[in-house]
Amino acid sequence: MTIQEIREYLLRFSDSVELLGSGEGKITGPAKIELAGPGQVSFIANEKYIRFLGTTEASLVIVHRSVSVDEFTEKRSFLKVSDPYTAFVFLLKIFAPPRVITAPGIASSAVIGSGTTIADGVSVGEYAVIGDNCSIGRNTVIGSHSVLLNGVTLGEDVLLFPRVTLYEGTALGNRVVVHSGSVIGADGFGFAPQSDGSYVKIPQMGVVEIGDDVEIGANSTIDRATMGSTVIGRGVKIDNLVQIAHNCTIGDDTVIAAQAGISGSVVVGRHCLIGGQAGFAGHLELADNIQVAAKTGISKSFMQPGTVLRGTPAQPMRDQLKLEAMMRNLGAMKEKLDLLDAALKERKSDA
Amino acid sequence: MTIQEIREYLLRFSDSVELLGSGEGKITGPAKIELAGPGQVSFIANEKYIRFLGTTEASLVIVHRSVSVDEFTEKRSFLKVSDPYTAFVFLLKIFAPPRVITAPGIASSAVIGSGTTIADGVSVGEYAVIGDNCSIGRNTVIGSHSVLLNGVTLGEDVLLFPRVTLYEGTALGNRVVVHSGSVIGADGFGFAPQSDGSYVKIPQMGVVEIGDDVEIGANSTIDRATMGSTVIGRGVKIDNLVQIAHNCTIGDDTVIAAQAGISGSVVVGRHCLIGGQAGFAGHLELADNIQVAAKTGISKSFMQPGTVLRGTPAQPMRDQLKLEAMMRNLGAMKEKLDLLDAALKERKSDA
Amino acid sequence: MTIQEIREYLLRFSDSVELLGSGEGKITGPAKIELAGPGQVSFIANEKYIRFLGTTEASLVIVHRSVSVDEFTEKRSFLKVSDPYTAFVFLLKIFAPPRVITAPGIASSAVIGSGTTIADGVSVGEYAVIGDNCSIGRNTVIGSHSVLLNGVTLGEDVLLFPRVTLYEGTALGNRVVVHSGSVIGADGFGFAPQSDGSYVKIPQMGVVEIGDDVEIGANSTIDRATMGSTVIGRGVKIDNLVQIAHNCTIGDDTVIAAQAGISGSVVVGRHCLIGGQAGFAGHLELADNIQVAAKTGISKSFMQPGTVLRGTPAQPMRDQLKLEAMMRNLGAMKEKLDLLDAALKERKSDA
Repeated sequence: MTIQEIREYLLRFSDSVELLGSGEGKITGPAKIELAGPGQVSFIANEKYIRFLGTTEASLVIVHRSVSVDEFTEKRSFLKVSDPYTAFVFLLKIFAPPRVITAPGIASSAVIGSGTTIADGVSVGEYAVIGDNCSIGRNTVIGSHSVLLNGVTLGEDVLLFPRVTLYEGTALGNRVVVHSGSVIGADGFGFAPQSDGSYVKIPQMGVVEIGDDVEIGANSTIDRATMGSTVIGRGVKIDNLVQIAHNCTIGDDTVIAAQAGISGSVVVGRHCLIGGQAGFAGHLELADNIQVAAKTGISKSFMQPGTVLRGTPAQPMRDQLKLEAMMRNLGAMKEKLDLLDAALKERKSDA
Repeated sequence: MTIQEIREYLLRFSDSVELLGSGEGKITGPAKIELAGPGQVSFIANEKYIRFLGTTEASLVIVHRSVSVDEFTEKRSFLKVSDPYTAFVFLLKIFAPPRVITAPGIASSAVIGSGTTIADGVSVGEYAVIGDNCSIGRNTVIGSHSVLLNGVTLGEDVLLFPRVTLYEGTALGNRVVVHSGSVIGADGFGFAPQSDGSYVKIPQMGVVEIGDDVEIGANSTIDRATMGSTVIGRGVKIDNLVQIAHNCTIGDDTVIAAQAGISGSVVVGRHCLIGGQAGFAGHLELADNIQVAAKTGISKSFMQPGTVLRGTPAQPMRDQLKLEAMMRNLGAMKEKLDLLDAALKERKSDA
Repeated sequence: MTIQEIREYLLRFSDSVELLGSGEGKITGPAKIELAGPGQVSFIANEKYIRFLGTTEASLVIVHRSVSVDEFTEKRSFLKVSDPYTAFVFLLKIFAPPRVITAPGIASSAVIGSGTTIADGVSVGEYAVIGDNCSIGRNTVIGSHSVLLNGVTLGEDVLLFPRVTLYEGTALGNRVVVHSGSVIGADGFGFAPQSDGSYVKIPQMGVVEIGDDVEIGANSTIDRATMGSTVIGRGVKIDNLVQIAHNCTIGDDTVIAAQAGISGSVVVGRHCLIGGQAGFAGHLELADNIQVAAKTGISKSFMQPGTVLRGTPAQPMRDQLKLEAMMRNLGAMKEKLDLLDAALKERKSDA
């Protein structure tokens, strides 16, 4: 790919892409700035990497438009953009080799139930099992060994990696990606305690609905609602080993890191960031744009948009950091207290 | 289903079910009280929903026998019971559509080992693989893509959802339910450190035994014992992504929420409640009826039945709440201390 | 197996194995010292079990060379070694029944892609799916229902239990064991935030490389690198439900307990011990021989080898234990402070 072609490609996503340097030569792939060699493209999005501007072997470097590169333009070319990180991500998409999760078409070993409709361009991998009355949208890929129970609906351009389970009635929007081992729609954890100490299972009659452009990592679990739907909003990104319990609603564009756990009937706002291993008690609500630090334990609702939460029990970051500073100061407090106590006792004996 | 039939059905579980209102009309399904329409049955188990008594469109409402409904009996019917929540759960069971996890009978693609016996009424899904010398009890359902290694024993009316793995020698009682992705009987995590810094694997020769009426969520793991058995008692309910290590014993009717982790050789009593993301150090014991709050970190045994535990390291709830209150008070303490210090210094300079 | 044969076997691992007692009789299997019967071999590695020396029914007991057994040698035989625990572990290996995860040879239902090479002695289970251009080393066992995407490399004597997924390009060394449900090489969790609040996926073009003698538990996840490799060093042991994010490097012989989570680009040294449910923020580093207590939350690098870490945020054990003691002492501090305050006020009113 020529540098000119790269410039034209980036102009699709950016108002201005300024070329400095000769702009000649072919680019064969991307690399980190400190490892890049001739023929490779790299980027600088963080000030501390600017020191590599002079030493990198990259033939092309993408930088922020504010970065001065004039003294290096004889050795290599530069493209100045407003967001070099995102520009580089889009470049990665070009250089990424085409990904083949399963051979095109429907494997002869796949089992497809009655009443199921499959649109054009769908691929279904070896030994995949699709139940009755499912609907699979155009160009969707179902990896080998995935199991769809009855009544599952997949949108267009969905990608299920191998070994995904979707329980009855699960509905996925367009361009949803689900990684291997995840289980969507298993029964919510609901049992009614009986007077003899045993439990009766509460039938879980609802479903899971997942919006467009959601990505779900490996071995995560999202449970079906008791009645109604567990809802994952458009654009939500869920990491590995995450638990989302029955009847939760996760707002659009919220990001949930690995091993976080969200209890039943929680409502999370839009565009929140949930850190790894964070935990939520049930039946609470978070406003939009809330950030939850890793390992935080949330035990009540927080309705102020933009709050940053930390600690167990969780509180706004400022309060939690103050608490943590106070705890680090406990030794000094104790010392001061003991000195005061001694001083007072001394005076008493003086008196 | 008529209201009279519902009343008769509920009488199977309750001494008294009193009908108020006409008792006429057919009920087609259940709904939440605030969403219910004509022909639907709902319930009120919580005082704050009593305000819907007058406005709900439900044709039948199940209430506690202490609730006064006389002014509404012209518009709809009521059934008064001693436990409206449980009554409604039993009703849900009736209205829940029959669940088809896999087609009845044994799929021709299922692989069944030698010496394995399969009782009447068993269903085995597509591509399930059952090892040698297994025993499958009456009416048990094995979902597609489940794998049973050699010597596995399943009781009657067991339900394995698709993609469950049971390692060698795992034994499940009657009516056990295991959700998709769970792995029962994998090797305990045991390695003997060697003088050169490496580890030698300790063979894990034991098994897992699971009692009647246990339910296990999705993607959970229960490891086999090193020698002997890891034991899950009758009626235990385990949520998603739970880890139970080798040689644990979990008492009957204990409930374990999502992402909790129990280390090796722990003994948990009967009828305990373990919160989500709680963690247990190894080789400790909990008495019966202990409640463990979410995210608690248990580092020693607690032998007093009925204790409620919270915090890391865990302590009885009262002590932990006192500690948390004290921590919230740290700022006030510091202020008081500084004032005292200043006052004392002032006097000193006065003296 | 005779006692003499056992002695000869143990001499393979130990300089000296001293026999006391008759050394006659056959040993049929191992057992715990308190449960062992005639014909069984047991061991004592912990002083508190020495009291069983006289009462055990075991025919053979393995003890440390410093233990005095002379008064019991008429009843049973003893083997004295320098490390009785390890000696017993090696004995367990002998008595462990041969483990058959899948029938020998390549199941006719296994699907094997083009360009894939399979060495001698390999077994592939029912319905396993192996992609194109993979390489499978000698005597490796691939459990049923495992899925290898294109370009996977397995060394010799690897054991994949059923239902393992290896994404494109994953490379495993020799003698690696992976338990059921684990997913290696799924996409790293990388998304570039856009100005409209949505995210663009960052292509994950790297791979996972796993060294020799690694064991990975059930339902764990190890993500591929964005560029380059996520690296698991030789001899690393990983428990169940562990998350290792993209671009991590885990040093040789490090042990990671269940449900621990390591964020992106973390570097863990050699021979560390990571406790269960511990969590790591991204882009940090741990030196060699560091121990991390269960549930610890690590938010910065620790470069001093041998440090023991605990708490959230993590700090060296000594500091954390001091902090915890201080917190337990808060009530006493408050009392003292209030007494001082009262005393001072009293004097003031006296003055």
